Amino acid sequence: MNLDDILPVRYEEGRLLVMDQTRLPGECIYEEIRTKEEMWDAIKKLKVRGAPAIGVAAAYGLYVSLRDFSGDSMEDFRLLARDNAAYLNSARPTAVNLSWALRRMIRLLDSFVASPESGVSEEASAEPGVSEGANQGRASVEQAKKALLEEAHKIRIEDEESCRRMGEYGLSLLRPGMGILTHCNAGTLATAKYGTCLSPLYLGQEQGYDFHVYADETRPLLQGARLTSWELSRAGVDVTLICDNMASIVMKNGWIDAVVVGCDRMAANGDGANKIGTSGVAILAREYGIPFYMFVPTSTIDLETPTGDDIPIELRDGEEIYKMWYQEPMAPEGVKTYNPSFDVTKAKYITAVITERGIVYPPYEENLRKIVEG
Amino acid sequence: MNLDDILPVRYEEGRLLVMDQTRLPGECIYEEIRTKEEMWDAIKKLKVRGAPAIGVAAAYGLYVSLRDFSGDSMEDFRLLARDNAAYLNSARPTAVNLSWALRRMIRLLDSFVASPESGVSEEASAEPGVSEGANQGRASVEQAKKALLEEAHKIRIEDEESCRRMGEYGLSLLRPGMGILTHCNAGTLATAKYGTCLSPLYLGQEQGYDFHVYADETRPLLQGARLTSWELSRAGVDVTLICDNMASIVMKNGWIDAVVVGCDRMAANGDGANKIGTSGVAILAREYGIPFYMFVPTSTIDLETPTGDDIPIELRDGEEIYKMWYQEPMAPEGVKTYNPSFDVTKAKYITAVITERGIVYPPYEENLRKIVEG
Repeated sequence: MNLDDILPVRYEEGRLLVMDQTRLPGECIYEEIRTKEEMWDAIKKLKVRGAPAIGVAAAYGLYVSLRDFSGDSMEDFRLLARDNAAYLNSARPTAVNLSWALRRMIRLLDSFVASPESGVSEEASAEPGVSEGANQGRASVEQAKKALLEEAHKIRIEDEESCRRMGEYGLSLLRPGMGILTHCNAGTLATAKYGTCLSPLYLGQEQGYDFHVYADETRPLLQGARLTSWELSRAGVDVTLICDNMASIVMKNGWIDAVVVGCDRMAANGDGANKIGTSGVAILAREYGIPFYMFVPTSTIDLETPTGDDIPIELRDGEEIYKMWYQEPMAPEGVKTYNPSFDVTKAKYITAVITERGIVYPPYEENLRKIVEG
Repeated sequence: MNLDDILPVRYEEGRLLVMDQTRLPGECIYEEIRTKEEMWDAIKKLKVRGAPAIGVAAAYGLYVSLRDFSGDSMEDFRLLARDNAAYLNSARPTAVNLSWALRRMIRLLDSFVASPESGVSEEASAEPGVSEGANQGRASVEQAKKALLEEAHKIRIEDEESCRRMGEYGLSLLRPGMGILTHCNAGTLATAKYGTCLSPLYLGQEQGYDFHVYADETRPLLQGARLTSWELSRAGVDVTLICDNMASIVMKNGWIDAVVVGCDRMAANGDGANKIGTSGVAILAREYGIPFYMFVPTSTIDLETPTGDDIPIELRDGEEIYKMWYQEPMAPEGVKTYNPSFDVTKAKYITAVITERGIVYPPYEENLRKIVEG
């Protein structure tokens, strides 16, 4: 198993590489990103998707968009950085991690300007021989670039570590040989590495757990078929693809010992919004007596949102349902559709919430606040 | 609303017409069936599908395959009829109504030979002027043909009446303006007319009930998208197409007041096998407090099968999941799949069973037997 071959975002020998996930599962191709326009395009066209992966890509993308700046005015450099960050942020205005990562990069730059020593490594700040005017400005800009690249690395490494910790906590809930059902893709392809809910499956694979994974295809966009079954089988994990409506029969057959899913936003009371269909899987799991685990980085827990009813649900184009993948329209032209991207799983159906800081059990109202506020 | 425009099987002015449902929803085209080979092909290739519709088509198909018989030996005619029936029956060996309808046609022929008067209309039996040898044989054969055509009509009319009665019983459970969820296609296209579970929706439409119908697309073969949303919208019924995994959210939204589904086989204890995914819909309905109605002609109730666990589940090719409709493979080549055609809905989730003889409530073990055995 080598997840390093399928990371969604890589920075190698000065090149920023983004996997074009729209070509999966047919082709696994990396594109080099050289400009802010190329980065914007990659996010907009879903070549890179999954909130954490988008954040990582945007951070590197901002750096790449600035590294050829050849002026010596730090103020010009900051203005350009802000412009480019605002531009990249417009690629998908609703993805929280995108704006979060870009804000973090800009904050780093601001603090670097205020106090150049603070935001940069010893090696950089120890650089000798800058003493005056243009030369000094030039050196500062170069140091700021270096600091930005390091911040992008940090964002990536922190996400990878967070995923790995979620994997370890998650694995403590599982036993070798278990059958595991998952929905959508909250895997390596959606994060820096490991994924959230797929992380324990990779860690288990390393330790010979021999899980049997069932992947819901996840209509309408088929993330389970195109991405989850692809990345798991690439890593040697035993995976069986099913249609979403087969979740009930595989549970009935006794093949599922646990359900693992990701989360897009969790309210303060433990209601969790995730890919459309998740709530149905949770209700089935409860009915069949199967534990249902939601993997939720603490950054995804929104204490300002009281309950799932307060989470707005994105509605998307009906053509995703009846047209986009098909050789011919698969429903009457102009048929009415309803195409919500997410649904909310009520807290009562969630057996445990797995975060990078530990496992949270009910009562969620109280225990989520504790883990977020430390 | 005119369902007569979209009947799956029509016999008009001596022509047997079968709608090619594989071309729906793009084109609504009838093909004339002139030979047993054409009929076999239409059944095999699913141009006509739905157990009752297949039975009707096969009955007419058998007649059509015999009507050009020009001999005067009744014995030769019977042998040919048996051969052709066996041939047609091989098109889909597992469809119960296919063999049932063909057996019924052959039995009619047998009883006609035993007592020509019994199996034929007055008009036919009153045909004058046949008295000896070849002439008499010739006349008998022609009378037998006429009797077979009448039997095919009877099979069609009985199915239509049965569906209409199920519709009336079903409608008595519904109220104007209700939101109704259905799964797969148990409609006009699957029967002689009206369908089983869609029948009350058509009858309600005639009476201005203004139902809001939600049709699960029904992966992998998309009968809900291709057939149900097509036939309901053709008839002016308000229908919204959703992916299967959206059943939970539309129930949560409060949009669904009742679920109506068909049935492929019901065991003596009330467990009902139907299109894959039905059991999941039933569990969700129970959780959201929504009544779940299964429409089951008494011929589909199998008192010899004690429980749903005794009903074998057909497994189909995985390519249906990841390849057949798509412009390109939507999962890694060679991915493992599990593709059951049906699942079993436990009796405890079924609010009522609607038959052509009335509505059956629990305890099913007792009440199903009563209604079947009269």
